[in-house]
Amino acid sequence: MTRRTLKLGAVLVGVGGPGQHHTWLSPEIPGDASVDIRWYIARARQAEAAYFDHVFIVDSQFITPDSPNHYLNRLEPLTLLSAVAVHTSHIGLVGTLTTSYNDPFNVARRLASLDLISGGRAGWNVVATGDGGTAGNYGRTEHYDYATRYGRALEHVRVVQGLWNSYEEGAFPRDKAAGVFFDRTKLHALHHVGEHFQVAGPLNIERSPQGQPVIFQAGDSDEGRDLGAEIADAIFTHARSIEQGVAFARDIRARAAAKDRDPEQILIVPGFSPIIADTDEEARAKEAATVGGKDFDRALKELGRPFGWHDFTRYDLDAPFPELGDAGDRSFRTQADAIKKLARDNGLTLRQVVQTTIESRRSPFVGSARTVADEIQRWFEAGALDGLNVMVTVPSEFARFTDEVLPILRERGVARTGYDAATLRGNLGLPIPVSTHARAAQTVSAR
Amino acid sequence: MTRRTLKLGAVLVGVGGPGQHHTWLSPEIPGDASVDIRWYIARARQAEAAYFDHVFIVDSQFITPDSPNHYLNRLEPLTLLSAVAVHTSHIGLVGTLTTSYNDPFNVARRLASLDLISGGRAGWNVVATGDGGTAGNYGRTEHYDYATRYGRALEHVRVVQGLWNSYEEGAFPRDKAAGVFFDRTKLHALHHVGEHFQVAGPLNIERSPQGQPVIFQAGDSDEGRDLGAEIADAIFTHARSIEQGVAFARDIRARAAAKDRDPEQILIVPGFSPIIADTDEEARAKEAATVGGKDFDRALKELGRPFGWHDFTRYDLDAPFPELGDAGDRSFRTQADAIKKLARDNGLTLRQVVQTTIESRRSPFVGSARTVADEIQRWFEAGALDGLNVMVTVPSEFARFTDEVLPILRERGVARTGYDAATLRGNLGLPIPVSTHARAAQTVSAR
Repeated sequence: MTRRTLKLGAVLVGVGGPGQHHTWLSPEIPGDASVDIRWYIARARQAEAAYFDHVFIVDSQFITPDSPNHYLNRLEPLTLLSAVAVHTSHIGLVGTLTTSYNDPFNVARRLASLDLISGGRAGWNVVATGDGGTAGNYGRTEHYDYATRYGRALEHVRVVQGLWNSYEEGAFPRDKAAGVFFDRTKLHALHHVGEHFQVAGPLNIERSPQGQPVIFQAGDSDEGRDLGAEIADAIFTHARSIEQGVAFARDIRARAAAKDRDPEQILIVPGFSPIIADTDEEARAKEAATVGGKDFDRALKELGRPFGWHDFTRYDLDAPFPELGDAGDRSFRTQADAIKKLARDNGLTLRQVVQTTIESRRSPFVGSARTVADEIQRWFEAGALDGLNVMVTVPSEFARFTDEVLPILRERGVARTGYDAATLRGNLGLPIPVSTHARAAQTVSAR
Repeated sequence: MTRRTLKLGAVLVGVGGPGQHHTWLSPEIPGDASVDIRWYIARARQAEAAYFDHVFIVDSQFITPDSPNHYLNRLEPLTLLSAVAVHTSHIGLVGTLTTSYNDPFNVARRLASLDLISGGRAGWNVVATGDGGTAGNYGRTEHYDYATRYGRALEHVRVVQGLWNSYEEGAFPRDKAAGVFFDRTKLHALHHVGEHFQVAGPLNIERSPQGQPVIFQAGDSDEGRDLGAEIADAIFTHARSIEQGVAFARDIRARAAAKDRDPEQILIVPGFSPIIADTDEEARAKEAATVGGKDFDRALKELGRPFGWHDFTRYDLDAPFPELGDAGDRSFRTQADAIKKLARDNGLTLRQVVQTTIESRRSPFVGSARTVADEIQRWFEAGALDGLNVMVTVPSEFARFTDEVLPILRERGVARTGYDAATLRGNLGLPIPVSTHARAAQTVSAR
C-alpha cells in the first residue's frame, strides 16, 4: 500500500454547535449562516481550494429553545449538498441521514442522485440518531432501544447498498445508431426480506462514476464501533489525546479484521477545532477568550442533551452530581454513562462536571501554525488518525488552517498538493465496489 | 381581482415519458438527460428566460424493464431542484413527493430547505402514488386503498403545513449588538395526533420569503378532486378539449367553494405537448411522424400500467378487450376504470383500445405559432385553464414555444412580459400564508 496523505474534511457549523453559543457574534459570520446556501458554497470552495477531501454536514432533528444556535434553524443535509455540488468540482459531499427515521429506498435514491449530480462525490454519514426526542417527530412515543437501533442501522445500510446495485455498470448503452437505450439483462431487483425491512427494488437510478457513495459512520458505544467496523469506509470520531486516538484506531481495526475486512481500508477521521495564532502564547490567549466562564450557564443546559435534555438547572451546583437513574437510556447512552461514571469515580459536584465538559471541548491543536502542523503530524504518524474533520465557523480562522498550517504539512509530504481524482472514493484511496450482479456474472463466466 | 396572465410551467422529461419511446433518439438530447443535472439546469434557464412561473419535476418509484425511458433512471426530484435553485434566480421549483411513502417531518424539512435555498421558490406537487408496485419498496405487500391513500394525503399536507408554522415570522432577530440570536416566544411545537400521523415538532427551520412552499396537486378521481379542492394552490391535470377543461375547472371551483375556499385562488394548469411548425400543415405532418404506428407495441405494454403493469401482450389483439376483474384496483384506478368503460361502452377490441390511448395523447395545440397562440388564448379566455404545464424534451421544440408562441401571447396581454416577483407565490399571484401562531396572537391583541 502506498503512503497515504492526511485526509481532510470541513464540518460546516456556521452559527455554532454545542459550546459555541457566542460564535455567531463574529462580524465575519452572517447571522443566518446556518440557512444561507451562499455561506455553505463559499466555505466548500474555500476547502476545495485547499484540496480538502470533503465537506461534512452533521445533523439533528429535535430541538428545544435551548438547542445550540446552529441546530435551531438549519438546512436538511442532502438538499444543502446538492446545491453545493453544482458550485464545486472535486470536493466530496458527506451528508448525515439517520437509519432510524428514513426508509432505505428514499435514502438510496437521494444519495445516488447526489452522487450522479456531483459526478461521484457523495458520502453518507450513517447515524442511528442520538436525541431521543426525535422519535416524537416520527410517530413514536419513544426512541428505539440501543440493540434495535444498531440492528436497524446495519440492515438499513446493507439494503441501501443492495439497491445501489440495481443496475450493473454499462446498463445504459444509449446507442442512438442501434436504437438501444438500455440493456434489460443488467437490471436486478433486490427482493430483500429482513428483520427490520422488506424492500423489493429495483432502484430507479444507475451507478455513479465512483460506483457507490462512500460510507462514513460515527458512534463510540460498543454497538457503534461494531457497526463502524462492519460498514464504514471512514469513521468520524472525537479524540482528546494521541493515546486515546491510537487505542480507538486499534480497536476499530481489530473489530474490522475479526469481520474479515482489510483493517487498512477504514479511515479514522476525528473532528477538531484548531486554534491558530502568530505565536503559541497568542493562540492560548485566544483559546482562553473562547472557552471563558461566560459559557457556564449554557454548558449546564447542554449537559442535559445526552440525558434526553434533562434539566440540570434545578439542582444545587455544589452538591454531588445528582442520581439520574435511567435518564438518557434511549439518548446518547455512551456519553451519558461516561459522565455518570466520571462524577461517581471522582466524587464530583455538578459544577465540577460542567467545568469538565467545558474543558473536554479544548482542542489538542492550539498554537502557531508550525506548532499545530507539528502536532497533527505527530498524531498522524503515531496512527491516532488518518485525517481530520476540521470544524468550520469563522472563515478567517479556517483560512489560518488552510493557508498557514497546510502549506507546512504539504512541504513535509503529509498533506496532498493537489486532487488525486474527481471522485470522493478516488481521493480517499478507496476501491470502487464492483456490482454484486456483475461479480456473480464474472464468477460464472470464470468457471 | 386584477386580470391574471397565463401561468407557465415546464415539465422536464428529457428522455421521454409514456408514449415517448423514441424521444431520446433526438440528436439534441443527451442519452443521459434524465440523470444529467446540466440538462435540467439548461432547460430551467431556458424557461426562466421566457419568464416561466416554474419547472415541474414529475416522479415515480416503481420500475419494470418496460417502464418509459425517463422513468428507468432518474434523479430524485428535490435533490435535482436544489441544484437547479442555485443556477436560477426567479423561476419556481416544483417537485413531486408522495404522501404515501414519506414521513411528514422529512417532507416538511426538505421542502422548507429548498424554499430557503431558492429564496422562496419551492412548490410541492402532492401525490398519493399511483403505481401499486411502489408499496413493495416500502415494506408493504400492497398499496393503500383509495380511501386510506387520500385520507393520509390530506392529513399529511396539513401536518407539513403545521410544521412550516413552527417559527413565526421574525423569530430570528440576529441582533449582534444586543446579543439576541432568536426569540424563544416565537417557536411553537405542533403536537399533532391524528388518524394516520403523530408528529410532535417543532420543525428546525424558519419561514421563507414566500412564507411556505406552494401546493400543487394532481388526481382526477373523485377523491383526488376533493383533495385538490381542499389543499391545492394549483392543480396539474390533463385536458383534451375546451369543454372538458371548463367542466373540470368548474367542478374543482365548486368543490372549493363548498369547502369555504375562494375558488379563484385555485389555478388550473393542465399539461400539454404543443407541436409547432412554420405552417399548420407542417405541424400536422410532424405530429403524424411522432405518434406513428411504430409505437404500437410500446403502447400495448404501457397500457398495463394503470392495471398494475398487467401484461396485455398475451391476449388476441382483435378479440374484445379482456375481462380484467379487479386488476388495477390499487393502482391508477380512475384511469383503469375509464379504459374498461370505454371498451365496454363501445365494444372495442384490445387493438382499438391501444389505438385510442395513442390517439388520446394527441396534443390540442398543433400548428403554426399563430394557430397555437390563438388556441391557447381561446382555452384561457374560455376558462378551461389558468396556465399550461408544457412538456419539455427536445430543446429546439421548446424554443419554438418560448420564442415564437409566447411573443404573440405577450403582445395580446395574455402572457407576462417580465417577472412580477422573486418568489413563486408572488408570480402566481397567491397570498403569503400568515403564521397560524402570529394570527392567534393578532386575534388576542385585537380584542
